[in-house]
Amino acid sequence: MSSSTHSVVIVGYGGMGSYHAKLILDNTRLKVTGTFDVLASRREASQNDGYPAYESYEAVLGDPAVDVILIATPNDVHKELVISALKHGKHVICEKPVTMYVKDFEEMMAVAEETGRVLMVHQNRRWDEDFRIIKEMYDKKTIGDLFQIESRVHGANGIPGDWRHLEAYGGGMLLDWGVHLLDQFVFMIDSKITSVTSRLSFILGDEVDDGFDAVLEFENGVTAIVEVGTTNFITLPRWYVKGTEGTAVIEDWSLTGRSVVQNHEVGKIEPKPIKAGVGLTKTMAPPSEEATLTEALPKAFEHESSFYDNFAAVVEGTAEPIVKNSEVLRVLNLIENVFKSARTREVIKDFDTYEPKK
Amino acid sequence: MSSSTHSVVIVGYGGMGSYHAKLILDNTRLKVTGTFDVLASRREASQNDGYPAYESYEAVLGDPAVDVILIATPNDVHKELVISALKHGKHVICEKPVTMYVKDFEEMMAVAEETGRVLMVHQNRRWDEDFRIIKEMYDKKTIGDLFQIESRVHGANGIPGDWRHLEAYGGGMLLDWGVHLLDQFVFMIDSKITSVTSRLSFILGDEVDDGFDAVLEFENGVTAIVEVGTTNFITLPRWYVKGTEGTAVIEDWSLTGRSVVQNHEVGKIEPKPIKAGVGLTKTMAPPSEEATLTEALPKAFEHESSFYDNFAAVVEGTAEPIVKNSEVLRVLNLIENVFKSARTREVIKDFDTYEPKK
Repeated sequence: MSSSTHSVVIVGYGGMGSYHAKLILDNTRLKVTGTFDVLASRREASQNDGYPAYESYEAVLGDPAVDVILIATPNDVHKELVISALKHGKHVICEKPVTMYVKDFEEMMAVAEETGRVLMVHQNRRWDEDFRIIKEMYDKKTIGDLFQIESRVHGANGIPGDWRHLEAYGGGMLLDWGVHLLDQFVFMIDSKITSVTSRLSFILGDEVDDGFDAVLEFENGVTAIVEVGTTNFITLPRWYVKGTEGTAVIEDWSLTGRSVVQNHEVGKIEPKPIKAGVGLTKTMAPPSEEATLTEALPKAFEHESSFYDNFAAVVEGTAEPIVKNSEVLRVLNLIENVFKSARTREVIKDFDTYEPKK
Repeated sequence: MSSSTHSVVIVGYGGMGSYHAKLILDNTRLKVTGTFDVLASRREASQNDGYPAYESYEAVLGDPAVDVILIATPNDVHKELVISALKHGKHVICEKPVTMYVKDFEEMMAVAEETGRVLMVHQNRRWDEDFRIIKEMYDKKTIGDLFQIESRVHGANGIPGDWRHLEAYGGGMLLDWGVHLLDQFVFMIDSKITSVTSRLSFILGDEVDDGFDAVLEFENGVTAIVEVGTTNFITLPRWYVKGTEGTAVIEDWSLTGRSVVQNHEVGKIEPKPIKAGVGLTKTMAPPSEEATLTEALPKAFEHESSFYDNFAAVVEGTAEPIVKNSEVLRVLNLIENVFKSARTREVIKDFDTYEPKK
């Protein structure tokens, strides 16, 4: 095992597994040396892509040349696979959601602790540029203090793939896109969540949610609205954020967007009433042009390193993980309470395991 | 008193009062014959506009030539003024919100009943064309059954005017725009509200809400999201509605909008994955062009008559009111529960006084 290159075997060579293989090609510290999949067709695909396919998971575990196992299987088998890997002395990258329940991840964390191996969850959307722009606005108060942050991901293609339609495999959109969007908030906002309210959508007739919305209230006064939809033929903006000095929007993945802020150079300018339906309104008239400034969005916050480089550095003992297991645990607990709020139609309070960052 | 022209005195000659005077100019069955306001400056404005100003409310009540009193004062004095008017044999049009509490309106309804006079609340935004387009889509299922209807009114000018900043006068945006938006839903959706969840906004530091959002769930499966904001420098669409066959949007008061629906002429077309942040997504890729049809919005639902003509016909005994007091009462009860949900941060259930329409 070299300190500069760690051999990685990808377990589960479906959509995400093969995507990891492509991305790791560009990384100098990790190298994919093989894969394993329970399906013969995917083992064949792996061979065709140039990655030797192991015949069994036991063969991966027993191969001393393997430093890292990357788990990209359906969600329901993450726990068993991760624990075996750690017990065989492997470091582990696991796809999200790492598990469906807090208690399962707690067991996994305990095994990582006992074995002294690294377990990192692939919450890669912390690196999404749209999110990093919002994080920059939040941290630097470019439109004042953000007090309402609305994060929406809308599609019209229904639930993707195969196992994601099934509850037993950990399907549904809350566990797919939801875990990313909630993780972004937990990473960005250093404050306790005081309440969550949510609704799941079952419009498509699947046994799992085809979307959801959740409202999170934080102790520091921020409200987050998180929404995932797969029945939206027209999309609302990816991000819509309100600050004490203005409003900003990121329309979509192209990062088209803008901020509109109060212009403090001019005094208070009374808006001109506009016709709105059968009435007139001054309240809902646009502010006059002079009263506001339209600005470009700021440059995105930059992480210290990529996910893979950070993982390698953590294995080498030279960095703290950017995706901390305590944060992942907090998101899983949040997700359990999103499900609970939707099921009971209650606002859930006093559930967050937040501890202030040092 | 002629059956074709009813003389109207406007009480409260501010923004709405003077707006009524202008609108009634075009109506053949009502005629504004005078006004009363407690402020000398507004009595003067009325005289300048050609409407004689009474010296006191008692003078209006005592004038046998007055058929109708139209109340456009701050909200806190509606009840007293309306009850006096009814007891003096006048028919009454009252601005919204008619009162702040259910019990007050129940007293007013009882007096209308005893005196045999007509009391109608000016819920004029039932006539807004944007709303009537959505009602047409709801009734005619132009994009299938609507299951989520989002109604937003966004401005960036703060709370308007003077008394609307003060709790004692019935200020705040829930009682201003909120009562219209909630009334539209109660009018449109013939189903019991099973829950309401809401949050009020106090960003501007006023003692009353500068905006709110509320989620209403109806027994028939429809969810309504209602939002009013006065700190939104960028606006979200006025209407965003999801149906079982597609999605529709009305951007703003100009009625710019469209529907996008599934194209049943073509089979299922797999979307092409797109780059989204650091990942690829098929789920959140746009449906391929062939898979959808973009359509214009339908023509708006048409009421049988205008608000004023309907009022005149109700006075003459030839029509049922379009704005029924039972509906107004239901909206007031809903508003009380919106306040309650925001105050307690709870989902409120089992409060709606719905009775199925005959």
